[in-house]
Amino acid sequence: MEAIEELQALLKKLPGMGEKSAMRLSYHLIRTDESYNRALGSAISSIKEKIHPCPICGCYTEHDICSYCSDDARDRSELCIVEEPQDVLSIASSGAYSGLFHVLGGAINPLGGVGPDKLSFPQLMKRIEEGGFKEIIIATNPTEEGDTTALYIRHLLKDRSDLTITRLASGLPIGGELGYADKLTLARSMRGRIRL
Amino acid sequence: MEAIEELQALLKKLPGMGEKSAMRLSYHLIRTDESYNRALGSAISSIKEKIHPCPICGCYTEHDICSYCSDDARDRSELCIVEEPQDVLSIASSGAYSGLFHVLGGAINPLGGVGPDKLSFPQLMKRIEEGGFKEIIIATNPTEEGDTTALYIRHLLKDRSDLTITRLASGLPIGGELGYADKLTLARSMRGRIRL
Repeated sequence: MEAIEELQALLKKLPGMGEKSAMRLSYHLIRTDESYNRALGSAISSIKEKIHPCPICGCYTEHDICSYCSDDARDRSELCIVEEPQDVLSIASSGAYSGLFHVLGGAINPLGGVGPDKLSFPQLMKRIEEGGFKEIIIATNPTEEGDTTALYIRHLLKDRSDLTITRLASGLPIGGELGYADKLTLARSMRGRIRL
Repeated sequence: MEAIEELQALLKKLPGMGEKSAMRLSYHLIRTDESYNRALGSAISSIKEKIHPCPICGCYTEHDICSYCSDDARDRSELCIVEEPQDVLSIASSGAYSGLFHVLGGAINPLGGVGPDKLSFPQLMKRIEEGGFKEIIIATNPTEEGDTTALYIRHLLKDRSDLTITRLASGLPIGGELGYADKLTLARSMRGRIRL
């Protein structure tokens, strides 16, 4: 196979990349700066070698312990539970949370073959038992799987009346319009309405 | 900078790649197969080293002469003139053309600083003078720049009444609907209407 066809075939395997986009991207890479290509190529080649899950919370890091778990300035009385490592970055960069994180590695999805045993619940329970947390914030996605997972966590912690257990609010996205919101989102924002 | 942020910063420089897409792609690369990452990384790193323009027609190749110019089965009496190297692949893969190609390297665009001297007209004229062609097919884009370039080529060849000079048809895209076509395309398809 010619080098350019090989590059296109590899690019086409990326998510959301069709035949045309792969072609356009490969021709862009031929025209662009060679040192950029080498930097990008080496960053892609080495990413899995450099990055591994944090042994405490499960988010990606290139250090022994991730930057959140090792940051003494973060509030160690709050634990935010998310599905995927990238969710940590989303929440941390919102600026509205300064506690610790726990990555489950997915959400419970019996039809998709993901039972609770596939997720990091033992590590989660161990962290919570070791103590120090006052609030557990469940930040799984507002989907059927995320809701099921939230209920499961609620059940696991049913005897811990000392803990405040919360879930991220669902409702209308900021900047959105009522006319564009789907029925489920509208119903949730109605049920979760707050007093002004 | 952390490895993952560096990868995201590099990905974000690709055309059509925003902050969110770069993030999603970087997390995909962390989860995907390491051997795939190495293959893609090395293909990106080495593409500019492997590929160069064909000295005859200007399309990209990794051989001394490109696969079109060196293919004796192609019709050497037809020459198709395109703007960019990727246009060669588009036309060749349409299956409707089996002649040779010539890549101009762009289109005449005085406002954008691209005069005829920036394009490969001397090589084009030399190829045509060396003879053997019966038809010259101008396949520049149906844009103002492409049309200007087509007229310029027509002018360069004004004394060659022995050559048939043609231009790709413009009109409605196959599978398209009249309601979605813009006025200029509709006007062109009307002017270029053919007898049934």
